[in-house]
Amino acid sequence: MSKTENLVQHLEKLHINNMYKNDFYWTWDKTDDELDAIFTVADALRDLRERNISTKIFDSGLGISIFRDNSTRTRFSFASACNLLGLDIKDLDEKTSQIAHGETVRETANMVSFMADVIGIRDDMFIEEGHKYQKTFMDALDEGYEKGILEQRPTLVNLQCDVDHPTQAMADLLHVIHEMGGVENLKGKKVAMTWAYSPSYGKPLSVPQGIIGLFTRFGMDVTLAHPEGYEILPEVEEIAAKNAEASGGSFKKVNSMEEAFKDADIVYPKSWAPFKAMEKRTKLYREGDKAGIDALEKELLAQNAEHKDWSCTEDMMKLTKDGKALYMHCLPADITGLSCAEGEVDNSVFDRYIEPLYKEASFKPYIIAAMIFLSKVKDPVAALRDLEKRGEKRKEF
Amino acid sequence: MSKTENLVQHLEKLHINNMYKNDFYWTWDKTDDELDAIFTVADALRDLRERNISTKIFDSGLGISIFRDNSTRTRFSFASACNLLGLDIKDLDEKTSQIAHGETVRETANMVSFMADVIGIRDDMFIEEGHKYQKTFMDALDEGYEKGILEQRPTLVNLQCDVDHPTQAMADLLHVIHEMGGVENLKGKKVAMTWAYSPSYGKPLSVPQGIIGLFTRFGMDVTLAHPEGYEILPEVEEIAAKNAEASGGSFKKVNSMEEAFKDADIVYPKSWAPFKAMEKRTKLYREGDKAGIDALEKELLAQNAEHKDWSCTEDMMKLTKDGKALYMHCLPADITGLSCAEGEVDNSVFDRYIEPLYKEASFKPYIIAAMIFLSKVKDPVAALRDLEKRGEKRKEF
Amino acid sequence: MSKTENLVQHLEKLHINNMYKNDFYWTWDKTDDELDAIFTVADALRDLRERNISTKIFDSGLGISIFRDNSTRTRFSFASACNLLGLDIKDLDEKTSQIAHGETVRETANMVSFMADVIGIRDDMFIEEGHKYQKTFMDALDEGYEKGILEQRPTLVNLQCDVDHPTQAMADLLHVIHEMGGVENLKGKKVAMTWAYSPSYGKPLSVPQGIIGLFTRFGMDVTLAHPEGYEILPEVEEIAAKNAEASGGSFKKVNSMEEAFKDADIVYPKSWAPFKAMEKRTKLYREGDKAGIDALEKELLAQNAEHKDWSCTEDMMKLTKDGKALYMHCLPADITGLSCAEGEVDNSVFDRYIEPLYKEASFKPYIIAAMIFLSKVKDPVAALRDLEKRGEKRKEF
Repeated sequence: MSKTENLVQHLEKLHINNMYKNDFYWTWDKTDDELDAIFTVADALRDLRERNISTKIFDSGLGISIFRDNSTRTRFSFASACNLLGLDIKDLDEKTSQIAHGETVRETANMVSFMADVIGIRDDMFIEEGHKYQKTFMDALDEGYEKGILEQRPTLVNLQCDVDHPTQAMADLLHVIHEMGGVENLKGKKVAMTWAYSPSYGKPLSVPQGIIGLFTRFGMDVTLAHPEGYEILPEVEEIAAKNAEASGGSFKKVNSMEEAFKDADIVYPKSWAPFKAMEKRTKLYREGDKAGIDALEKELLAQNAEHKDWSCTEDMMKLTKDGKALYMHCLPADITGLSCAEGEVDNSVFDRYIEPLYKEASFKPYIIAAMIFLSKVKDPVAALRDLEKRGEKRKEF
Repeated sequence: MSKTENLVQHLEKLHINNMYKNDFYWTWDKTDDELDAIFTVADALRDLRERNISTKIFDSGLGISIFRDNSTRTRFSFASACNLLGLDIKDLDEKTSQIAHGETVRETANMVSFMADVIGIRDDMFIEEGHKYQKTFMDALDEGYEKGILEQRPTLVNLQCDVDHPTQAMADLLHVIHEMGGVENLKGKKVAMTWAYSPSYGKPLSVPQGIIGLFTRFGMDVTLAHPEGYEILPEVEEIAAKNAEASGGSFKKVNSMEEAFKDADIVYPKSWAPFKAMEKRTKLYREGDKAGIDALEKELLAQNAEHKDWSCTEDMMKLTKDGKALYMHCLPADITGLSCAEGEVDNSVFDRYIEPLYKEASFKPYIIAAMIFLSKVKDPVAALRDLEKRGEKRKEF
Repeated sequence: MSKTENLVQHLEKLHINNMYKNDFYWTWDKTDDELDAIFTVADALRDLRERNISTKIFDSGLGISIFRDNSTRTRFSFASACNLLGLDIKDLDEKTSQIAHGETVRETANMVSFMADVIGIRDDMFIEEGHKYQKTFMDALDEGYEKGILEQRPTLVNLQCDVDHPTQAMADLLHVIHEMGGVENLKGKKVAMTWAYSPSYGKPLSVPQGIIGLFTRFGMDVTLAHPEGYEILPEVEEIAAKNAEASGGSFKKVNSMEEAFKDADIVYPKSWAPFKAMEKRTKLYREGDKAGIDALEKELLAQNAEHKDWSCTEDMMKLTKDGKALYMHCLPADITGLSCAEGEVDNSVFDRYIEPLYKEASFKPYIIAAMIFLSKVKDPVAALRDLEKRGEKRKEF
């Protein structure tokens, strides 16, 4: 039996009726079965791709991407996922559009979506803004579809907002599943999601939030560690706590990197901005106070600099389970002695984990493709079987 | 009988032999039958799309787009139209090209067209420049094709020049045809194409020109209204007058928004730049006088500000036929109290017409696709029938 | 027998086993048979395209382009070549990516390549940097493939580095072959690759290097002419000398444009930067000395200005064989009296050769497509025959 057929037989058992024609905002909107379906379809699409079997389900169509912040990995992952399924990409570049002239989100949303099948949006810069933008955008498409303006209602893939970074967290977890030899081996594993020092400013909180919001659903013991002042959204902490209870794992918060690293099976040391400062930043942004934002940035960098000891050094790694925890990062990392003088991780640590780190990243195109697949295909079980049976070659000759 | 077959039977009766391998510059270059053919094919392509039937007529090939001014709607419409027919898009970004280094239009035209099927150009910033650029470009391709440099001669879709904005005007009219329940119901309808105040500067004249140049062909009574100093190209006014005479409609000019709105079935209030100033601006542009252009801009804004009463308010709308004229706009509009303090239209008026406004815009991808289709397909009647009969699914599963 | 079948029968006789899954850095890495194969496949793909036969060998897949310097011709040629074979393009725009944040080339390479079939890179700005970047990039992909991060290893097309510009030189030579009526007529032809004055600064040395490194392989008498101080890479001069010896041609260097033009069959007058200055520039670049680079630029322009007599004037052309040498240029040229006051070539000369110049450029998309084809297709002979036999129309109807 092929790997794909094996996966399809698993998929058959899951209850995933709600995914068709639906958006992906946050992992905690989805049931366990729905997340399982995404992992399963991602693995199946990868298997087919590796066997040179085409997975085009579209003959033509568009994936619209909107990146309101810089991106390499996610940009190429979204492009790859669309291409894998037969969609062309059209990127909305706000600089060359007419959006500056006070155009509403409602209008833009409809104007770019007449022939769109999927929308991918990254808007992660300001707390309380990113998700709101995505929600406003998709609500406008609901309205546009209801009123007959759009012949179909495109679905959303959240490519990172201020609350969650689901394509990252899901790719990270699929990587962990593969490293640990199956989802059944996750129970009881100790995960350290910790803050780390970086010379840069204001990284989004959505990665740590995404990780604790997702990893707590699989019976793991998740510790969130950061210096005081680097709190994350309390709503997401609550979700993590509830998840842990339901899954038989645990969730705790500490103010010591050492404590989190102690006996950890998995470490995820990563910089993010202090929460209060991010709130202040959003306020300045709304007031259009550019000078205020610049001043705040300096303040933040000074605050960051007080915590240079929060770094994933060789000594820190020795604290982990057998000194061999799985080191994870969403990339790019600030690497001490390579990309900066003092950063999130020692060069020797980072370099030792290059292979798993790149593998971790390699799941993202398939995770995004699976999200699209499950939102656009009515009967994913039949569709995957058909693709395999049909066996059209992706590359001929 | 399917809607498409119905449309095809209408198409069969039209004389459209000149469209194959031909460019689309201005609507008044085209016969009535040719315009009719575009509307008909646009409706047919939309019907097929809505029934999930693929309309790919290209297996591979390129649509080249050149936007010398910002664009969202038209950019996405062109991309959507190309994708609908099976073409990839390649956008010529003059900033990352070598065009700055004194390269001639003749050379650029040939260099980007070796595998191009269609060229879409927006060049609307300077009077006497936009059309000239498009013409020079396409003449160079004629030469390139004749001399065997290009294996085929791509066709042009004018995505807005200084004279006409045909994809806009055609989409607008197709919207009107659908709203009025058929082209036969247009006769005698009163249309007000009027200037409106906007806090912004120098909007192109090609929209009002395009509207009066096209709408006068269908027996409607078209009134062009603007303050003194906001004249449009006299050549286009002449065309409008001749069209009106031939079609049994009328064309008149007034200097009062109220007069134009009185009993109107359709109102199209929109800002544009004063003509004399635009001529001056072209002169400054040719002289490379950036400071002069900036000074002129201030002057124009002051001139605009004298006509803030030219606004599509609720009171103004009450003057129209039963107070319920169809409000039209090419978007984005300057909306009083939403995108600016004082603008082209009251927020309450705009908001009441959101649904028809977005529908109006939704025709543009299909209008562009129809223009491409008719310029690239030798026997459009047979081709549409074949596409429907073949019935290949756009989205499988 | 079709032209394609004719070409395929020639291809059958060549030894080209090393091309499959291999990169294209420099023409001198390749055997004579391998270069022959590229010309042959380029001609075959063009023949099929001209007969409206689809040459899509990919059902989906990506060509990644990285332009670290401006480009129009090569950018559109790469896009066209990818489209011709069924690949979508995704351009890595370093400005909107996260690369600025100290990300390593090794990481970027892997991150953009998860679903890439081909990589095209232009990096020609700094001596000793361009090739190094490409090599580092592709070595990282070797590593990524070996470690199972990438399911396949994309192949490289060098779109211009500091050493060679193979897609240009190959397109140039295919043009010469067609102009001369076959590769067998190249023997003994006199080629003048000469420096010419331009008011611009610091053009890459890779074009003259590419030309002398390639044209010397076909028994031609190649003269490299430039003012003192405008030397090119000595390694490439050595390669040219060896090539000439092996092919029964000759290679010599002179410091006089007149001498090179005397009785030439082919002239290629083109500006490039002085070598020593380029080395200095690389040093300043590594030190991040932006002011130093600006100062150097002024110095270089002054140095250039001493050699304004190095121009391809009508008088200069009269020195060539019957006054009718084939004039070549990679475009865009600095044309005296058209794009600048004093430049590389008289407007009247340039204008007389517009047709062959544009034809010269028209080969580049096919050369790139042939490079991709030969690196991705295991049995190119069978593949071309299959494409022709299958006869799928590129444009239907």
